[in-house]
Amino acid sequence: MSKSTSDPYEKLTEISTRIHNYSSVLSLLHWDQETYMPSGGISPRSCQIAQMSQLIHEEKTSREFKSSLEKLVHLSTGKPKKKGLSKIEEANVREWRKNFIKATKLPSSFVRTFSQLTSEASQIWAAAKKANNFKLFAPFLEKIIAMNRKKADILGFGEHPYDALLESYEPCMTTARVGKIFDALQNELKHLIKKIASAHPTDDAFLMREVEDVKQLTLGRLIVSKLPIDPAYSRLDVSMHPFSIALHPHDSRITTRILPKAFMSNIFSVLHEAGHSLYEMGLPVQHWGTPLGESVSLSIHESQSRWWETLIGRSLPFCKFFYPLLQKELPGMNKIPLDRFYRAINQVKPSFIRVEADEVTYCLHVILRFEIEKLLISGKLPVSDLPEAWNEKMKEFFGIVPKTDAQGCLQDIHWSLGDFGYFPTYALGNLFSAQFFSAFQKKHLDWEKRVEAGDFIFIRNWLKDNIYRYGKMYDSDQLAKKATGKPLSEAAYCSYLKKKYSDIYRLKN
Amino acid sequence: MSKSTSDPYEKLTEISTRIHNYSSVLSLLHWDQETYMPSGGISPRSCQIAQMSQLIHEEKTSREFKSSLEKLVHLSTGKPKKKGLSKIEEANVREWRKNFIKATKLPSSFVRTFSQLTSEASQIWAAAKKANNFKLFAPFLEKIIAMNRKKADILGFGEHPYDALLESYEPCMTTARVGKIFDALQNELKHLIKKIASAHPTDDAFLMREVEDVKQLTLGRLIVSKLPIDPAYSRLDVSMHPFSIALHPHDSRITTRILPKAFMSNIFSVLHEAGHSLYEMGLPVQHWGTPLGESVSLSIHESQSRWWETLIGRSLPFCKFFYPLLQKELPGMNKIPLDRFYRAINQVKPSFIRVEADEVTYCLHVILRFEIEKLLISGKLPVSDLPEAWNEKMKEFFGIVPKTDAQGCLQDIHWSLGDFGYFPTYALGNLFSAQFFSAFQKKHLDWEKRVEAGDFIFIRNWLKDNIYRYGKMYDSDQLAKKATGKPLSEAAYCSYLKKKYSDIYRLKN
Repeated sequence: MSKSTSDPYEKLTEISTRIHNYSSVLSLLHWDQETYMPSGGISPRSCQIAQMSQLIHEEKTSREFKSSLEKLVHLSTGKPKKKGLSKIEEANVREWRKNFIKATKLPSSFVRTFSQLTSEASQIWAAAKKANNFKLFAPFLEKIIAMNRKKADILGFGEHPYDALLESYEPCMTTARVGKIFDALQNELKHLIKKIASAHPTDDAFLMREVEDVKQLTLGRLIVSKLPIDPAYSRLDVSMHPFSIALHPHDSRITTRILPKAFMSNIFSVLHEAGHSLYEMGLPVQHWGTPLGESVSLSIHESQSRWWETLIGRSLPFCKFFYPLLQKELPGMNKIPLDRFYRAINQVKPSFIRVEADEVTYCLHVILRFEIEKLLISGKLPVSDLPEAWNEKMKEFFGIVPKTDAQGCLQDIHWSLGDFGYFPTYALGNLFSAQFFSAFQKKHLDWEKRVEAGDFIFIRNWLKDNIYRYGKMYDSDQLAKKATGKPLSEAAYCSYLKKKYSDIYRLKN
Repeated sequence: MSKSTSDPYEKLTEISTRIHNYSSVLSLLHWDQETYMPSGGISPRSCQIAQMSQLIHEEKTSREFKSSLEKLVHLSTGKPKKKGLSKIEEANVREWRKNFIKATKLPSSFVRTFSQLTSEASQIWAAAKKANNFKLFAPFLEKIIAMNRKKADILGFGEHPYDALLESYEPCMTTARVGKIFDALQNELKHLIKKIASAHPTDDAFLMREVEDVKQLTLGRLIVSKLPIDPAYSRLDVSMHPFSIALHPHDSRITTRILPKAFMSNIFSVLHEAGHSLYEMGLPVQHWGTPLGESVSLSIHESQSRWWETLIGRSLPFCKFFYPLLQKELPGMNKIPLDRFYRAINQVKPSFIRVEADEVTYCLHVILRFEIEKLLISGKLPVSDLPEAWNEKMKEFFGIVPKTDAQGCLQDIHWSLGDFGYFPTYALGNLFSAQFFSAFQKKHLDWEKRVEAGDFIFIRNWLKDNIYRYGKMYDSDQLAKKATGKPLSEAAYCSYLKKKYSDIYRLKN
């Protein structure tokens, strides 16, 4: 279908678009697997996914791609060879070069071994978690850590091998910088948690009422219908774990999870995934197929999901808008006044499980993992000592110790998938979102009134103007400076939490 | 992922399996488009489909495929070069050679032009049908016919250019042979229709009651649950047009269409598509990825769908089993006795639309198209005269004339897609199914009692033993002889119809 071109930029655009098309197909394979695929389809599906992944890897590392790239830029230094490229073209070439180096740096034998190991390890992890048997998983985790250390060596790093791993998820960050931000954040959070612990506790028992699946899906769709989401470009389904997946800005899908006795979990999942989805739908469609049409990084993506889930979704103005609708759908809720509802959905309580944590404790869960990951990767913490180290940190951070490893160091799937360096992006996403939000608030002093009235379009427009429309033009640091005037820090998030929770728990300063 | 091999048979198996994996992915893209894709996804979806199709074409025509094939067989003559291949290997090589010739015979410029033309033409056809304006579609149809004639010239043919087109859908058939069978069939059908027309008409007004979507889907799922279908390997969804699509024998999906005032249409769609799906699920999974794991031809596939839809689904024993279940689901139906229901669902009545035709008139619709296609391809009938020719044939065959071309020569999408030579497989499928059924009945004299009791597994097993398990080992002619002892003829179908409808309409001999 494609006619060959001799212009290297056009050639790269052509290959890049092909890669994006294949990636969209791969996304559909994953989406289908989690939503509608008959269970018997799993084994052929693995073959389909493996084959599409290989195809994408071949395209990313092809001689054709390399030779076109080399006509525009020095691969080793990044210095341009061709002058007169536009800013947009320059940014695409910069990202194509990064992608090519990333895709070719790890030998394909390493990639294959790693993929086989983690494919097996994630199954073993599931069994180990179910049986609460850490020893079952330990030998796999040891191998995964060894391979991650090797990966760091191949990729290269400055001070700490963890730098290399972190950088593959958030290119702007180093271990030292994240450590500094997390240390400051940790102190503030611990202080706040202590104050909340001595305050009068809120009651959220009425949120545990049983709500049937059909009604919960109705609530999910209701939320989506109120957000500035074009129904022609999106859909909501149910899956085991909520996720967002975009095949294209015009085909961006989310799922939610339905827990019969936790209907607010469904609501917040929808808001979270809708945040990811709004970002994907807002990316510049005219650049689709090239890096300029992509999101910045995992942290920035997470800032978008947390924005809608927490900064908006757990805010008082949003409750004022949404709670009356909820009361109509759930008979009996009209006995619960708004204030009680708002305090209940914002209850702060140390807990074992990261994904169920409230806004205040959430980042501590992440910091715990960051500290443990550094120790594991540097070899200072042997895998056999992990459960003990985990429990000690839990005691130090939250004053509670999980009774089982399933509730402790076995709770997340990430390590079994080989993802070391991923966790920090969850906390960074919160910090970015709060910093963006403080700039947004300055621009829209009346945001609370407008949200209360169900107006969300001006929020989407602010995000479009300040985040979405740039695609991958800037890295996360540059974007933060552009949107907020400052480099990333914990300050905005901490002052947001202090203000909000001092009010909810009536804390004295 | 795949290690290279020097054995040409292994190499072909590897490429063939890759092609099948890509084809499964392509199937999912189509399935998703018809079921759950947000409407905005259509434009990116077209790109994804075009790219996957191109990829498959490249694999099918690759130098690697050709050179491996040439080590095993003379491409021009089909004579084997390598001795000692098993029967299975021989059959695969035979089919790989056929596929390669088919994929390379048409120049890619021809394929591209044809695909662009039909892509546009099918949109124009939809508009022309809606506006009942044949002239809008006529210039496109002219081009499509010219290209089909060119296609026949490139592919080569014996007596009639139509041979080449027919052969690409049913490799065993020639225009002359189909013509002979259809002539005999035509006479018998006309005779039977005349007799039925003078008999006392049946009443089916009670089948037009309105049944809501949710209930209809429940009925569809009920039917599927009674058939020997493993729920782990299948699923049922709703789409605009019913279809069946198999990604693999363990992931075989069907859809149904819901018309509020024709609930039996939904039931028969489910049975029809389930028949296709049972065939796909029954193909030898150990040969998946090679031709031996594929179905024989379109005609044989259609024989399987019509088997479950008509021979079983419209039979009295099936009604005895299913009607009580239906009565439970649809209040008010218990006023209608079984016999009236059975006669109503088997009402014979000349009609304009092929897809809504009963068992007796159905094949005449197909024969009408076959005769017209021959005339169009040979150039004896100019496109401008098509509507008139169509209406004359309608009068001759059914004694009725459509009031509009939308109800006449514009009713089917096939020609706009360039599919000339496809229609005959619909009628051939009916003939194959009846011939298979007569062999099945001889083996299972008690089939009626068992079906009445809801036992269908023995039927699936007979089909497995006589059809499914061979995959593409035999062509449709060989398969018919193996399963029934005779080459294909209209005899079994005609005697089946005469017996069944003489009873329903109490005809005298």
